[in-house]
Amino acid sequence: MNYCIRYIVPLTVLSLIGFTGCDLSKGDQKDTELLILDALEEQRSSWNRGNIEGFVSHYQNSEELTFVTQNGMVQGYVSLLDRYKKAYPDEETMGELQFEILSFKTLGDNHAAVVGKWTLVRSPDNPKGYFTLVWENTPEGWKIVMDHTS
Amino acid sequence: MNYCIRYIVPLTVLSLIGFTGCDLSKGDQKDTELLILDALEEQRSSWNRGNIEGFVSHYQNSEELTFVTQNGMVQGYVSLLDRYKKAYPDEETMGELQFEILSFKTLGDNHAAVVGKWTLVRSPDNPKGYFTLVWENTPEGWKIVMDHTS
Repeated sequence: MNYCIRYIVPLTVLSLIGFTGCDLSKGDQKDTELLILDALEEQRSSWNRGNIEGFVSHYQNSEELTFVTQNGMVQGYVSLLDRYKKAYPDEETMGELQFEILSFKTLGDNHAAVVGKWTLVRSPDNPKGYFTLVWENTPEGWKIVMDHTS
Repeated sequence: MNYCIRYIVPLTVLSLIGFTGCDLSKGDQKDTELLILDALEEQRSSWNRGNIEGFVSHYQNSEELTFVTQNGMVQGYVSLLDRYKKAYPDEETMGELQFEILSFKTLGDNHAAVVGKWTLVRSPDNPKGYFTLVWENTPEGWKIVMDHTS
């Protein structure tokens, strides 16, 4: 029996991990939501300090990253950073970024999607719109892997 | 030993299922991509036959469904169907829908995201834009659970 227990116990544990791995518990979902909302808050805070690199660091540093607007799709972290730097060359054009979160949805245990409204408070205009962000649980933490902003 | 084998074998199998459950094999990814591209083609075909219900049937029939445009977020299947019926009351306004797929990404084993370009060929205008669709593997097949179109 000792021989059996030595194998059965770890295998049972492994099986349980396996079976629960794809279904987040309510607690895990809450943790995921908090981690992502925290990252969004850090992102907003970086923007409002004029720190574009800090803002973009919450995106996945990968060539597979996709960023979609009504003008088309930008692919890759470097292209996205470049686009942001050109579109917002100084703190005046960056303005003050505000977020309103409208929807949060986990997609399995390593992905989640957030829908929100964004507003840039600046003169002379106050541009605003909506975003859908797909987040992935990467070795570097939760990162945006897809962004559709309009 | 027979007693051991009776437990160890199924537990080993369960463990293996558990460990591979969250990582799609290349073959499974290909199957997922084909199933979703097929659903998109069916969707386009329904639209071009003037069948709004057929087009919308590829969305998840749920109140959690989110559909985002630059005008805001619509939530729920019934609201989405209603929106489409009002915006496209006849085949003339529906025009001919064309899709161009730009990016496909699996998100774990039960979700995937597609980025594409859409065009409506009709007179007098030819509106066009981009979409990001999040698909979920539901008991009714692969369905769109989130749509951001701009």
